Amino acid sequence: MTDRFEADYILETAMPVETAAATIAGEQSSGTFMAVPGETEALKARSAARVERIVDMGDVAGPALPGAARADAPHRRARITLSWPLGNTGISLPNILATVAGNLFELNCVAGLRLSDLRFPDALVAASPRPAFGVDGTRDLSGVQGRPLIGTIIKPSIGLTAGETAAMVDLLCAAGIDFIKDDELQADGSVCPFEDRVHAVMPVIKAHAERTGKKVMYAFNLTGEVDEMRARHDLVLQQGGTCVMASANSVGLTGMLALRRHAQLPIHLHRNGWGYLSRHPALGFDYTAWSKLWRLAGADHMHVNGLRNKFCESDESSLTSARSLLSPLSAGNPGITMPVFSSGQTALQAFDTWAALQSPDLIFAAGGGIMAHADGPAGGVRSLQDAWAAAMAGLTLEQAAKDSPALAAALRTYG
Amino acid sequence: MTDRFEADYILETAMPVETAAATIAGEQSSGTFMAVPGETEALKARSAARVERIVDMGDVAGPALPGAARADAPHRRARITLSWPLGNTGISLPNILATVAGNLFELNCVAGLRLSDLRFPDALVAASPRPAFGVDGTRDLSGVQGRPLIGTIIKPSIGLTAGETAAMVDLLCAAGIDFIKDDELQADGSVCPFEDRVHAVMPVIKAHAERTGKKVMYAFNLTGEVDEMRARHDLVLQQGGTCVMASANSVGLTGMLALRRHAQLPIHLHRNGWGYLSRHPALGFDYTAWSKLWRLAGADHMHVNGLRNKFCESDESSLTSARSLLSPLSAGNPGITMPVFSSGQTALQAFDTWAALQSPDLIFAAGGGIMAHADGPAGGVRSLQDAWAAAMAGLTLEQAAKDSPALAAALRTYG
Repeated sequence: MTDRFEADYILETAMPVETAAATIAGEQSSGTFMAVPGETEALKARSAARVERIVDMGDVAGPALPGAARADAPHRRARITLSWPLGNTGISLPNILATVAGNLFELNCVAGLRLSDLRFPDALVAASPRPAFGVDGTRDLSGVQGRPLIGTIIKPSIGLTAGETAAMVDLLCAAGIDFIKDDELQADGSVCPFEDRVHAVMPVIKAHAERTGKKVMYAFNLTGEVDEMRARHDLVLQQGGTCVMASANSVGLTGMLALRRHAQLPIHLHRNGWGYLSRHPALGFDYTAWSKLWRLAGADHMHVNGLRNKFCESDESSLTSARSLLSPLSAGNPGITMPVFSSGQTALQAFDTWAALQSPDLIFAAGGGIMAHADGPAGGVRSLQDAWAAAMAGLTLEQAAKDSPALAAALRTYG
Repeated sequence: MTDRFEADYILETAMPVETAAATIAGEQSSGTFMAVPGETEALKARSAARVERIVDMGDVAGPALPGAARADAPHRRARITLSWPLGNTGISLPNILATVAGNLFELNCVAGLRLSDLRFPDALVAASPRPAFGVDGTRDLSGVQGRPLIGTIIKPSIGLTAGETAAMVDLLCAAGIDFIKDDELQADGSVCPFEDRVHAVMPVIKAHAERTGKKVMYAFNLTGEVDEMRARHDLVLQQGGTCVMASANSVGLTGMLALRRHAQLPIHLHRNGWGYLSRHPALGFDYTAWSKLWRLAGADHMHVNGLRNKFCESDESSLTSARSLLSPLSAGNPGITMPVFSSGQTALQAFDTWAALQSPDLIFAAGGGIMAHADGPAGGVRSLQDAWAAAMAGLTLEQAAKDSPALAAALRTYG
């Protein structure tokens, strides 16, 4: 294998940037702290990481992270690009993660380090599972074409029984929803065991499907051990369900791959814990880099937060995340993952989201934006549908609200 | 299930601490941003997280993390303890992780949040896999009693062929080593495929075992997909190997559990990537908390760095990590995981490590501390054995060096 994969990092350091970049490259391949006799030129030629590019980004005030060498010296920020031979890892996402994000954040030449992007050779992309359903498969299963899926999440997050969950699903299906998901806290607790939930919810969804001809997609959170996830997936499939959900940071890439290789349904991947991986800007991961590993592993849907969300993430960050999911992994194997917008979303954000993204290929999930609508859940769903139709037709919110009582009510409630 | 599990966090916030703690508890259980009709008192009684304790820790200068509400207001730090009913998650480590470390680090009432400890009810500890070998099992398999295992890592980390690796193993076995591990970068690359490595290394180890009566423990890095890991484990077992290794952050808790439930050998768990989870002190995890999840999942050995290491971690941090691994998970089911000291370790640190820890139940791994010894690897291993024997006998380094040429040489080289 002569192909190489590349990682971009934003590095902050008080060392010469070239030195720090070379140290990282060495630590993550054939080098070590001390020169060892076995590190021959031939070995380096076949296995060493390379510093491909360094782009200076200017001075920074000081070390963003504690413990770095030369804390009092001037610090600089630079974008560095490293590459590794694919032969170091083979086609193995868990080992690629250990290579691009292993023991390097704690190097003491590092005063800040963030993995900002990854690029993979076609050989790796083609041989990885990638989304088995993605946009087209999700549209086929949900019967929603040409516009975002309007979604919601069962609330309270946890504590409802299976029967209470099914009653909520009945209400939401009657309201015209396209997509419903479990909360990430709701997997297989004693109040609402997974099997009970599937057996209670699916008859409701099927009854509405018989009425409307459209089967609402429900993402059942099957997060758990491998055998549990496989069994739960099989139950959902057997009961006519069309989606399963897992928590990425709980199952890990190895757990995700086991699920993907077994699953015959779209996998809705939840990113809970993303905050600990990303919230400090000089540490961890940009979503663009992190999400590519999960896309390669087969995530069909991934969360990106939403505009004017209730968390601390900026609109630009959410949009960058969504754009990255909608960008191809490689020319031959795009592996597009459907972005899921959520958190404080209402009909109002549909206009900005469309304006910024210019794509209908997303799941737009609202909780209070549906349930707290003045005309009830049906009004809430209608307001979201009308908002997206109007936005995609080039209308403003105010123009559209004149012809849509549901939108007008949303404007009064959420405006 | 009426048992509850508890998590301690160090919270920094500009909100009243009680308000922020209640927000986190709500977000991670039955609450949400907006009051929802289904959140009844009965539901809260069965499923809500509780704020158990708040201990004020004083003022902080300002928000450690960007994006928090009231960035210009005074900030305080507090240790908060939350608890959840075990019924919310069941006996499910992946779902417990989503509960204690899910969507809370990005809440905008949070200007800093670090998960510092976890406590689990006996019912959970007893029902989790826990280390299947731990200290006693590792001592039985390696034939090392009453002192630390002296270990090393194959270097260069990656690039050696299977044959070159076996030649290095031969040298190290002849030098008297107890434990050898693959680097976390070395799993199944094309230069040194996993199967080739096992087939090349195990005959060397077995030949030395026939000579000495003691089989060197080699931790083969089998990180990969579930089926790959199971097959690789079976090969190691069938070839007479006594340990396998996996990268925690690559395989995830679900991957680890799949390996543990299958494995008949100790699992040496590598923490590469720990830096992105921990390096900013106001974000992420303390090792004490994080490692408990992996101990419950069955890690027999875990890395803790070492004194005067080459990374940016303080000695006190490494020692706290080691002490936590050597502390019981519960009275009835201690689940002790053997700490692995490494990074820049030589005979010199043995004295400080013993003085601070007062336990021989660890793996003490050195690279340059063995290979760069003036008398070669045999001198390096001997210096580490002599150092630990002397330290445990209450001697100082200088005293012991008088009677040990290997220690005297180590003092000259590394002192």
